[in-house]
Amino acid sequence: MKKIAILGSTGSIGTQTLDVVSREPEAYEVVGLGAGTNVELLLEQAAKFRPPYVSVATRELADSIRHRVPEGTRVLHGEEGLNEIAANAGADYVVCALVGSLGLISTLAAIDAGAAIGLANKETLVTGGHIVMSRAAEKGVKILPVDSEHSALFQCLNGEDRKALKRLILTASGGSFRDKTRDQLKDVTVEDALKHPNWSMGAKVTIDSATMANKGLEVIEAHWLFGVPYDRIDVMIHPESIVHSMVEFEDTSVMAQLGNPDMRVPIQYALTYPERRPSPASPLDLLAAGALHFRPMDFGRYPCLRLAYEAGRAGGTAPAVFNAANETAVARFLRKEIPFLAIEDIVETVLSRHAAAPSPDLEAILDADRWARLEADSIGG
Amino acid sequence: MKKIAILGSTGSIGTQTLDVVSREPEAYEVVGLGAGTNVELLLEQAAKFRPPYVSVATRELADSIRHRVPEGTRVLHGEEGLNEIAANAGADYVVCALVGSLGLISTLAAIDAGAAIGLANKETLVTGGHIVMSRAAEKGVKILPVDSEHSALFQCLNGEDRKALKRLILTASGGSFRDKTRDQLKDVTVEDALKHPNWSMGAKVTIDSATMANKGLEVIEAHWLFGVPYDRIDVMIHPESIVHSMVEFEDTSVMAQLGNPDMRVPIQYALTYPERRPSPASPLDLLAAGALHFRPMDFGRYPCLRLAYEAGRAGGTAPAVFNAANETAVARFLRKEIPFLAIEDIVETVLSRHAAAPSPDLEAILDADRWARLEADSIGG
Repeated sequence: MKKIAILGSTGSIGTQTLDVVSREPEAYEVVGLGAGTNVELLLEQAAKFRPPYVSVATRELADSIRHRVPEGTRVLHGEEGLNEIAANAGADYVVCALVGSLGLISTLAAIDAGAAIGLANKETLVTGGHIVMSRAAEKGVKILPVDSEHSALFQCLNGEDRKALKRLILTASGGSFRDKTRDQLKDVTVEDALKHPNWSMGAKVTIDSATMANKGLEVIEAHWLFGVPYDRIDVMIHPESIVHSMVEFEDTSVMAQLGNPDMRVPIQYALTYPERRPSPASPLDLLAAGALHFRPMDFGRYPCLRLAYEAGRAGGTAPAVFNAANETAVARFLRKEIPFLAIEDIVETVLSRHAAAPSPDLEAILDADRWARLEADSIGG
Repeated sequence: MKKIAILGSTGSIGTQTLDVVSREPEAYEVVGLGAGTNVELLLEQAAKFRPPYVSVATRELADSIRHRVPEGTRVLHGEEGLNEIAANAGADYVVCALVGSLGLISTLAAIDAGAAIGLANKETLVTGGHIVMSRAAEKGVKILPVDSEHSALFQCLNGEDRKALKRLILTASGGSFRDKTRDQLKDVTVEDALKHPNWSMGAKVTIDSATMANKGLEVIEAHWLFGVPYDRIDVMIHPESIVHSMVEFEDTSVMAQLGNPDMRVPIQYALTYPERRPSPASPLDLLAAGALHFRPMDFGRYPCLRLAYEAGRAGGTAPAVFNAANETAVARFLRKEIPFLAIEDIVETVLSRHAAAPSPDLEAILDADRWARLEADSIGG
């Protein structure tokens, strides 16, 4: 039985993780659930899974639910609450599905406690990949990717001769604007941007998918997760999103992982690896799909992806700055303060003003993140 | 260093195996080459690789070349010559690339000698799968598939949880007549049939690819090689022949192996497994391909595939009868004795007259093979 803690239990990945867990209750014991402000959902989850620890965003929220949790459940709060669950709830497996920079800190706490990590938080590796991967290696802790692309790469590398890895090929749906020219992008609205062709996601991820910033974050994550240099990580547009990613080997063989877009599959694989268990996801019907298309990535069309590669190659604090500037710019677009194409301009400008510090520690990463947010907020749209 | 013997060294697989071997001469020592009647090519190979043993089809041929082989090379002949090389040339790896039923006998000799097997001979598993697989398990001998489809399946299963295997999916190009209706097949000529859309192969294999008998043989091989029942082996038409085959797992993940059609890739993988080495094959350019198509298999359109499944399920001597009847019928078509559609009629008639003996020994298999050939020859076209 796996003792599992879920940080970010009320988000999309968190709820789907609990769905996977609830299908094999004999395989898991939920020892901690960390949430933010969605206390009603957290209370439902607590009633169902009866974890010894839950955590919410603030002391006020904690006090407001203390009398509503099951007997034996302690209510924690804030960053300390998440770290307490990561480190001291007795979890041997921590799913890190928080959004934002909190992810890095609590992932490090879980690694230090020796728990295996199911990693769904992008910022963790983007901003602190050098710290996380060396700390995990030191502690002998496994980092299992939850993102569908990284899970696909991980599956393609399963049992393989890593020395023979030639190239990682991430696939990208192309996002909601994939058939528009750059000229047509000038006037797109928030409403247009939020129509993703293949699935519905949160607003931030949907915009990131349209700008390809999302794929850029995934490239940086893949770099750290698999230890592959940027010139051997490629991105291809694959509108059907059925091939989740591929690995090319030195013998020219290409291994690919395919499936329907259902996050419960990579979540479950991260939990059951190296085993595979039956999934509630619907099986892939390749015959119904009929055809899989592949188109080259156009860095001119998607400057945010080019910027992500540049930030990744610059290293140090640059990826954290890329991420923070992008997050801030997307928030401004969603608030209708700036047009769509200003997102990439802001990210580029902020990166150009930043002198990346090499091998930053946690404090330096968080400083760079804060600086980039202020910069990105100050630039005219 | 691998001590390698190649049975069928002058055929297509044999020559490509030697091409692979010659690119890493420090990794291999060729200890035996078995050929048939192509003595000039064998002599070239012997001069280059200086094996201690070579073998040719007959005593006469052996006598005719004895003075032309390098010093230290012994010239053997016939079935005994092949078995001698398989068993007593000191090979720790035997590539079985003979055509026809000789393949089974010498593969068993190599297994008994404890050599790993690179298996390219279809008849071996189709006719004697139950003997070969149990003998290999007994001796702790690895059977490594050389065929591109089976190599793809093998690669997809690499490092995987075999209990979670749900379905093998073999891909089929559809052959030279894939766009013709059954009505249009009535009058096709040998010349039409030999135009394969994706690559050039021998006449027999090209016809088998057009009737889908080839895919039927591969289904039976896959059954034995991976221990998967027939109702979990599917075939899909994939005209581009880039996805060489796929495996679906219980969690709905599908792993696929992709590449250009270059037999040196699966040959090399069978030799270097679990490592992968650089290959002279050209890397796959998915962007140039642009699209991969998948169509359902139509058993009405391709009765030979249906018959192969039926023979496989009947088991015992039935697959040997399927194979022998098909071989004979194809030879008759190539001699222009019968029309194209008579191939499947003959196979069906011969199978319907056969009462399959369960768990046949080698003798019973060879008897069934001989019987089926006589029957297939006697049926009017």
